[in-house]
Amino acid sequence: MVLDVGVMGASGFAGAELVRILLRHPYVNLKAVTSAEHAGLPLSHLYPAFEGGSALSFVAHDDPVLSECAVVFLAVPHTAALNAAPQLVERGAVVIDLSADFRLDSADAYQQWYGVSHGRSDLLAMRAFGLPELFVQGLRDQADRFRRSQGCLVACAGCYPTATSLAAAPALRSGLVGEGIVVADAVSGVTGAGRRATDAAHFCAANESLRAYGVGGHRHLPEIEQILGLGGRLVFTPHLAPLSRGLLSTVTLPLATDEVIDAARLQRAYESFYRTSAFVSVLPAGVQPRTSDVVGTNRAQVAVALHPQARAIVATCAIDNLGKGAAGQAVQCANIVCGLPETAGLDLISTPA
Amino acid sequence: MVLDVGVMGASGFAGAELVRILLRHPYVNLKAVTSAEHAGLPLSHLYPAFEGGSALSFVAHDDPVLSECAVVFLAVPHTAALNAAPQLVERGAVVIDLSADFRLDSADAYQQWYGVSHGRSDLLAMRAFGLPELFVQGLRDQADRFRRSQGCLVACAGCYPTATSLAAAPALRSGLVGEGIVVADAVSGVTGAGRRATDAAHFCAANESLRAYGVGGHRHLPEIEQILGLGGRLVFTPHLAPLSRGLLSTVTLPLATDEVIDAARLQRAYESFYRTSAFVSVLPAGVQPRTSDVVGTNRAQVAVALHPQARAIVATCAIDNLGKGAAGQAVQCANIVCGLPETAGLDLISTPA
Amino acid sequence: MVLDVGVMGASGFAGAELVRILLRHPYVNLKAVTSAEHAGLPLSHLYPAFEGGSALSFVAHDDPVLSECAVVFLAVPHTAALNAAPQLVERGAVVIDLSADFRLDSADAYQQWYGVSHGRSDLLAMRAFGLPELFVQGLRDQADRFRRSQGCLVACAGCYPTATSLAAAPALRSGLVGEGIVVADAVSGVTGAGRRATDAAHFCAANESLRAYGVGGHRHLPEIEQILGLGGRLVFTPHLAPLSRGLLSTVTLPLATDEVIDAARLQRAYESFYRTSAFVSVLPAGVQPRTSDVVGTNRAQVAVALHPQARAIVATCAIDNLGKGAAGQAVQCANIVCGLPETAGLDLISTPA
Amino acid sequence: MVLDVGVMGASGFAGAELVRILLRHPYVNLKAVTSAEHAGLPLSHLYPAFEGGSALSFVAHDDPVLSECAVVFLAVPHTAALNAAPQLVERGAVVIDLSADFRLDSADAYQQWYGVSHGRSDLLAMRAFGLPELFVQGLRDQADRFRRSQGCLVACAGCYPTATSLAAAPALRSGLVGEGIVVADAVSGVTGAGRRATDAAHFCAANESLRAYGVGGHRHLPEIEQILGLGGRLVFTPHLAPLSRGLLSTVTLPLATDEVIDAARLQRAYESFYRTSAFVSVLPAGVQPRTSDVVGTNRAQVAVALHPQARAIVATCAIDNLGKGAAGQAVQCANIVCGLPETAGLDLISTPA
Repeated sequence: MVLDVGVMGASGFAGAELVRILLRHPYVNLKAVTSAEHAGLPLSHLYPAFEGGSALSFVAHDDPVLSECAVVFLAVPHTAALNAAPQLVERGAVVIDLSADFRLDSADAYQQWYGVSHGRSDLLAMRAFGLPELFVQGLRDQADRFRRSQGCLVACAGCYPTATSLAAAPALRSGLVGEGIVVADAVSGVTGAGRRATDAAHFCAANESLRAYGVGGHRHLPEIEQILGLGGRLVFTPHLAPLSRGLLSTVTLPLATDEVIDAARLQRAYESFYRTSAFVSVLPAGVQPRTSDVVGTNRAQVAVALHPQARAIVATCAIDNLGKGAAGQAVQCANIVCGLPETAGLDLISTPA
Repeated sequence: MVLDVGVMGASGFAGAELVRILLRHPYVNLKAVTSAEHAGLPLSHLYPAFEGGSALSFVAHDDPVLSECAVVFLAVPHTAALNAAPQLVERGAVVIDLSADFRLDSADAYQQWYGVSHGRSDLLAMRAFGLPELFVQGLRDQADRFRRSQGCLVACAGCYPTATSLAAAPALRSGLVGEGIVVADAVSGVTGAGRRATDAAHFCAANESLRAYGVGGHRHLPEIEQILGLGGRLVFTPHLAPLSRGLLSTVTLPLATDEVIDAARLQRAYESFYRTSAFVSVLPAGVQPRTSDVVGTNRAQVAVALHPQARAIVATCAIDNLGKGAAGQAVQCANIVCGLPETAGLDLISTPA
Repeated sequence: MVLDVGVMGASGFAGAELVRILLRHPYVNLKAVTSAEHAGLPLSHLYPAFEGGSALSFVAHDDPVLSECAVVFLAVPHTAALNAAPQLVERGAVVIDLSADFRLDSADAYQQWYGVSHGRSDLLAMRAFGLPELFVQGLRDQADRFRRSQGCLVACAGCYPTATSLAAAPALRSGLVGEGIVVADAVSGVTGAGRRATDAAHFCAANESLRAYGVGGHRHLPEIEQILGLGGRLVFTPHLAPLSRGLLSTVTLPLATDEVIDAARLQRAYESFYRTSAFVSVLPAGVQPRTSDVVGTNRAQVAVALHPQARAIVATCAIDNLGKGAAGQAVQCANIVCGLPETAGLDLISTPA
Repeated sequence: MVLDVGVMGASGFAGAELVRILLRHPYVNLKAVTSAEHAGLPLSHLYPAFEGGSALSFVAHDDPVLSECAVVFLAVPHTAALNAAPQLVERGAVVIDLSADFRLDSADAYQQWYGVSHGRSDLLAMRAFGLPELFVQGLRDQADRFRRSQGCLVACAGCYPTATSLAAAPALRSGLVGEGIVVADAVSGVTGAGRRATDAAHFCAANESLRAYGVGGHRHLPEIEQILGLGGRLVFTPHLAPLSRGLLSTVTLPLATDEVIDAARLQRAYESFYRTSAFVSVLPAGVQPRTSDVVGTNRAQVAVALHPQARAIVATCAIDNLGKGAAGQAVQCANIVCGLPETAGLDLISTPA
């Protein structure tokens, strides 16, 4: 089976990474890449990495070729996906949305955090949340729809929510976490801030520098709380560091009051949780993940440690923010929905140096 | 007044930065820089930054010239300072120790964390802790000793403890913090790991990478708990990011249960706390510090934010780990002890780009 | 056809990149990776990028499993390949040597530049030089040997020689170059200096720094002169810049005295030269290659410009020093020798950001 | 003596670095910093490095306070300096111009390279060229004017011309260079491309990447040819590398035909040339300069090597493009013109790590 596939919004970093992956995907025929701003331009003019590797040019968002695509990835900014998805789903396409538009379960929460009325609670109700390691059933339901030739919609998890949730979920789902604040301090490379040439994205502003941002009010906060069921008790602080790709989330969770757990049992709980996962590795006790070891892939590396004196669990997760945090995860979700091998087209091994 | 000064252990990163500062210090005559490994070698052979700027050569640790120095900075590894300090103090020198050997109040705690018997509780009792913004009285007591020509000893705070404590102290000392875990996630540049050529310090291991280390058991944990009076409730996780210098600590503290505080009052509490400080700036509400804005200086930039839903305070502090986190702070302490202007020889403005 | 393959010296950067490529190669069964120092250790302990992606462990160089390999890549230091290759060739293996041991045509030149007697002029005479875009016939001769089940030997070009020669060859072979000095100034990322933890490879030595090295006497000089037929008139100066991977060579060549050429004709000469190349792109006039656009791939991007006033040609070429400059080129050579598609297992598109 | 000083165009990288230097200059009272775009804004809002270190705000270019300044630095874009300088010189100010407007001796050449009619050949005739190590007499003439209270004008050399000329001048002025092409390949950090947020300056475009630019036609070409008297035979190719500050120029010069020189004599010629220089160090034979060893200072480090086989000299020079390549050099020139110690306010020692 080879699927005709389109990418709406291929000019951003996540969109371009998606194109790179799809061009090598054995079951995909990439038919169309769209860009409002760059329609008509060869892909390789904007991203010279495609020079000699692909002769595709951007077309407009409303180019008719999109209607021939069985699968459409939306890598457009939020609100644009809200506009584009309904029609695509209705005509029976598989829509894999990388934007934030269908992530929050509640239309009210969407309006609160994104300042826009949602208006498609029906789609929110039928869509799957795209974080396969934690929400596989929803994706299987979409796979049923796909087999019945019904339109499908997947709202892929954001980059910070993916890393933070993969780190925290085994502890939370094992009942090891008690009351009190849960703290997620995460650090991202600069691709996470997007392709726009801003003062903050200038090499000389980001290089040799560290800073926090969005303190107390980042839009990924409600998404992480929703995934982990942490209503109101998460403190999430994102940071920027001078690297292009890579995201590390460090999550500190209070141990349940009556819990008598040793580090070995905690380690086993994590290993057991991800035992069947194709993409998530739990590192041996004492070893911490490095983002450089997952860059360019769809992998996540997770470690967990116990802090006995303060009675806390410290879990860390490293991903490529454009890989497992965006384009890779989107392809993984599409693979599941379309009945392909989950790892098809996805790299498992990063460049070693 | 010009003081004759020596630096023991000038071949490490902190020692070399100390030399750079002292060479420009208007009240200092830098007489001797020592190195066990590099004795006899010109400073500029190991650090070509000194080429054309200083003709000093390293001498051995036991070179007699040290005995002519009124002030001796110890930038040697821990345990080496423990050996060197007593004799220097006894002969009446001002000893500014950058190592960890005299930081912990308790000799037992030292043995627990550093695996070495301390044996000089008398010196622990008389020494000052070198973090002037939080412990100025101890330094003033040493200044009295200096005026009476008695030996002085200052144990300068470590890099992580400095940034973490400057971020957290105003909240804690204002009584705004309640019960529960306090989380400090801090990120450092690679100079923090020292000058030794290790696999982890290889450019290609550290570049384009993020990782946590020392999870659950870093030696700066007891030091921070001691400074902040946080016995047993601190979770401190240090991280490495791909930059040479710079350290950012993000501290999350639970708000006191009955506290009704708004962000403006919190901001004022922080501004008030550092109002008279020559080196610490509290940034306007909504602005976060960047490490690049303090590199090369003895400054700290601090920000504080309120997280109303989770009832938490998020305080951040950026320093140069070799500046306010090591060499700068040591010179600041020496200035206070020796009755010099607190800012003498210390830069206040980083390179803007 | 699936070939059993081994990598001798898989613990260095080039060796590890080779392993990454071979693990994804559709016609390869990677049977053995050897390391003198790390035998017994899982590959993923040294390179956590393989965690979850490969369960291979290093074996000793003399492990019998190597004798089962139809193709053996030598990624060992120079002189070690000289020792290992003869026996492998004699037993009929395809030997793809990434070291310098069989690159120079003359055993005397080898002794002069590497300080070791060569002693295998017979192998030098039969081996092919591994830079397929410029020396394809030698590789085809090896392919004939492979079809006849005879041992094969390919001496892959070094990283600087590859980029420099791909930039300069079209001008030289078109007869456009006159007398006088040819200057190649090339800049490499730090992986080019190897995996050894040295002072110069320390993050804080290489970061935010530029420097030349090996001025006047780098071992790649005679290799480039040999490839390009530039006996004695090449000035080659390599430089290090703060990036992990990537190599850019800028070559300045004097225009032939009587040559009346315009930029358009020069551009066409370059485009024509690489028209059928699967891996080399000549960029449009006025566009310069960036190393980031070829990293992780076996591609080279080339540009050429005319400097009419000084009557010079300036040609540039960007490669990944570990890709087209080492592991990628080795696989390309193996593909040709073994009768596989030239691009099998090799990436054509770098990560766009 | 304390001079009232103003900086026109303080919002760019060179302007901001100038402000940093002038704020610490013992003979300077920095009265005014101007910016067309940011007038009214505190300096620290645009450059948080000044937070806590300076309370200055930008004023408009035509603010009357400028008329009170004895010395005015012009860090405005080219053509803007052409407009501003005449009036300032006429009212008797010392004008130190960092732009390109008065660098070229010939108004025709200016029009050719900058596309603007110059119209002030009179000022070109009276101005000094600001590269003190090579053109000190012109600066002394301006010093005479200053003592007579006449207006002064210095056109400071550009960053590439400074490094390239400091590397090449001793060889050329010693008569060691023969006929043929002279090649200068130079690499700069990204501050060299200015503060504007462009696609090329985006962190993710510049990071982990190397590229040449302006091949065959960079505006610094005629400036270097003028300084070195190399009419028409220089090939100058600038490159960008992923660092913020630092510039390395590698210059290859053909040895004179009849010259019988050994490396030791060449080395002595260089050492002799810069013997009395406060800012230029000639490194020992075999040692190459690193940009990181001069960043933040006004120093240049130079090395020279002989390439006997190709009969060429390879000279290298490392500077901080914003230091000796811009702001530092401007202050050095001002010091000379105003009769201050040449090194006043200028750092000689970079941060060692």
